[in-house]
Amino acid sequence: MTETQLRKAAKQVAATGRKAQGERTRKAILEAAVHIASAEGLEGLTIGRLALELSMSKSGLFAHFGSKEDLQVATVEAARAIFINEVIRPAFEAAQGLARLWKLCDIWLAYVQSGVFRGGCFFAAAAAEFDGRPGPVRDRIAEIMKEWLTTLRSTIIEAQNSGQLIKDIDPTQLAFEFNSLELGANWAFQLYGDGRAFSRAREAIRERLARYATATGLPLVSASKARQRV
Amino acid sequence: MTETQLRKAAKQVAATGRKAQGERTRKAILEAAVHIASAEGLEGLTIGRLALELSMSKSGLFAHFGSKEDLQVATVEAARAIFINEVIRPAFEAAQGLARLWKLCDIWLAYVQSGVFRGGCFFAAAAAEFDGRPGPVRDRIAEIMKEWLTTLRSTIIEAQNSGQLIKDIDPTQLAFEFNSLELGANWAFQLYGDGRAFSRAREAIRERLARYATATGLPLVSASKARQRV
Repeated sequence: MTETQLRKAAKQVAATGRKAQGERTRKAILEAAVHIASAEGLEGLTIGRLALELSMSKSGLFAHFGSKEDLQVATVEAARAIFINEVIRPAFEAAQGLARLWKLCDIWLAYVQSGVFRGGCFFAAAAAEFDGRPGPVRDRIAEIMKEWLTTLRSTIIEAQNSGQLIKDIDPTQLAFEFNSLELGANWAFQLYGDGRAFSRAREAIRERLARYATATGLPLVSASKARQRV
Repeated sequence: MTETQLRKAAKQVAATGRKAQGERTRKAILEAAVHIASAEGLEGLTIGRLALELSMSKSGLFAHFGSKEDLQVATVEAARAIFINEVIRPAFEAAQGLARLWKLCDIWLAYVQSGVFRGGCFFAAAAAEFDGRPGPVRDRIAEIMKEWLTTLRSTIIEAQNSGQLIKDIDPTQLAFEFNSLELGANWAFQLYGDGRAFSRAREAIRERLARYATATGLPLVSASKARQRV
């Protein structure tokens, strides 16, 4: 290796180190941003506000996010990654069909109840805040919530295809109802600190699953009750 | 009447006139405030923003509302008055029991769909915005939404007492479910402009009413279908 090559490699290592350091910093910033935004809104998430919370300089933050909108979009992406890790991944460990469908709903509710995000469901809050503000932030929120609805819907269809749920129900309708019950529980918990709202949502979801389950599916719904968190 | 008495009366008339004028102005200001807040949030509702929208001077607005918080609380009260006029009053024209319960849900959905408020349901938006911000604005929003849930619940109990709905259901649970479906429809409409969400919420509500209706109540649920808006 020539001296020039050596210097080049050393520079690359240093750059990688800085890059890794930069990515860790960015990740830490975004984690704080998600929590602030879930409680105080994405509009309240200014670079100044975040600098204060993290005791960082504004210019340091500007190096990571050029504008408030960049910061907002990056925060939405970070919240999506948390949601996938906390809800989707563990639910997908359950067998395809009714077990997975129940897990998706149950873990979603447990995750809001546990206070992963300071202000309850990040996306429910972000959607309410941005639904009337056209632009890239709103579009990304709408896309991500559509992913969630599509996941619910395709899991319902899988449960139908595996003969656990009757075919005579509209999966889009059922996904709408489950999503509504989850939004309703989040709403009641945020506004009244009413933890029973989660049991109410679970009860309503289980009641529907039991009503639409086939003879093959019904034991899976009963098993879900035994595991239900209160 | 002495001259002094005459002058006093004239002053009173003038004061009443000014007061009536003042009240009309205040009402017009609050109407604009409700629309702005439903779309852009109560936090975005500054005296400066409102002055711009109404082509009024800031000092003119300050004469009506001393502070931003006063303006926010007054806006919440104005939205409550609109909700009572647009939803509660017409629903209460229906007979006590299932007919009124259906009307409460149906008119609520029609009212959000019709775009009475620029940003959908004022209280759903306000609750999502303020649930994490303690203070008089949040408290008033929570109280008003509790009034709505209590109205739903007591209408369910009336339907049970009049023998139209079976007694073997928990009215708090059913009110939670109906409120959730309405929040879900509002959410889908605001985020995706999805008008079918209202039909989905109506279908889910009617399905539950039909399932829990007694033989006396069932014809009332069927009648509601004929009148359903699409």
